[in-house]
Amino acid sequence: MPPIITAFERSPDGGKGLARDTRVRWALEEVGQPYEVRLVSFQAMKQSAHLALHPFGQIPTFEDGDLGLFETGSIVLYIAERHAGLLPDDANARARAISWMFAAVNTVEPPILELVTARILEGDKPWSKERLPLVMDRIRDRLRQLSSRLGDADWLDGQFSAGDLMMVSVLLRLRASGILDEYPNLSAYVARGEARPAYQRAFAAQLAVNTR
Amino acid sequence: MPPIITAFERSPDGGKGLARDTRVRWALEEVGQPYEVRLVSFQAMKQSAHLALHPFGQIPTFEDGDLGLFETGSIVLYIAERHAGLLPDDANARARAISWMFAAVNTVEPPILELVTARILEGDKPWSKERLPLVMDRIRDRLRQLSSRLGDADWLDGQFSAGDLMMVSVLLRLRASGILDEYPNLSAYVARGEARPAYQRAFAAQLAVNTR
Repeated sequence: MPPIITAFERSPDGGKGLARDTRVRWALEEVGQPYEVRLVSFQAMKQSAHLALHPFGQIPTFEDGDLGLFETGSIVLYIAERHAGLLPDDANARARAISWMFAAVNTVEPPILELVTARILEGDKPWSKERLPLVMDRIRDRLRQLSSRLGDADWLDGQFSAGDLMMVSVLLRLRASGILDEYPNLSAYVARGEARPAYQRAFAAQLAVNTR
Repeated sequence: MPPIITAFERSPDGGKGLARDTRVRWALEEVGQPYEVRLVSFQAMKQSAHLALHPFGQIPTFEDGDLGLFETGSIVLYIAERHAGLLPDDANARARAISWMFAAVNTVEPPILELVTARILEGDKPWSKERLPLVMDRIRDRLRQLSSRLGDADWLDGQFSAGDLMMVSVLLRLRASGILDEYPNLSAYVARGEARPAYQRAFAAQLAVNTR
């Protein structure tokens, strides 16, 4: 039996690939593992059956036999540790790739999530216009450091890894803001991620759900 | 040679244990591994020698022979995977503990980091007073879900794990705000973490640096 992931019945982004199931689909496509998808509605996500699987009532989840996992980062790591293609063989290089996975979700994504909050939850507040540049500048602080580290390399540390998969996925959230274009090497890095056949398949699969 | 971690020469919190080196010290104490500490100044953190180790110019880092790691979550995972005491033996339970590590840094910590930003970087802004309750409510959303999952258990999933170590560390950031007291089981959970001898040793070690 292939593993089962959950995804939005209707993604809030309408199929732009920013919902986190895309990250898990991408990982599964990179390692060539088939999977099944169970779609969940916003109502169902907050009910006990789903909360038993995901305590924070979100998607994606990952069920593989007796095992139920939540949190995209840990699902991607689980897949990467069990199939070739997302982590280097060398133990040290492997540990460094996992550092980049955590950097994506704990250092780069938090200021980006602040931008999402500022726009979606506080877009109608009186402070919104004056505050937005501060939020953008905090994102730029991180992008400048990331851009400097990446330099003219294709990927963050040698071959493409789960660290790149997570970092590209996090940066993709910025595309609409235009900030990414201020860092041409990061913009090219994200484009390289998107050009991967595995990403293309993952993107098409989530788009198909959202344009039924 | 024991591994070497980096920590602030002077922590911005003056020794309250909220700097992230405490999380790594705690993990090393739980598994009984000795370590050395290299203190870095704010200036040194932004210079090339440190940036080579930590692309975002932060602490902690972790050096073990040829290996250099950054990002607290990945350092704790590296330690947990190589020494008994922080991850269950059963493969499924192990994967679930890692889910909690990611949940701590990617689901629970981001709204808490927003509170830190709101207070420290935007405390003098005209919108600060009106906005703070919104930020607090977004934290409460997460705490309510976490509290509901924890119930009357001691730890998040069976025995104490690296997932609890990370979650308790993230929740500790809220102590001064008083929000934690609204969820008595979470408050008791954090107190259980702090009462562990390994945490006590880690806390004392960072305090000694900051009260020299």
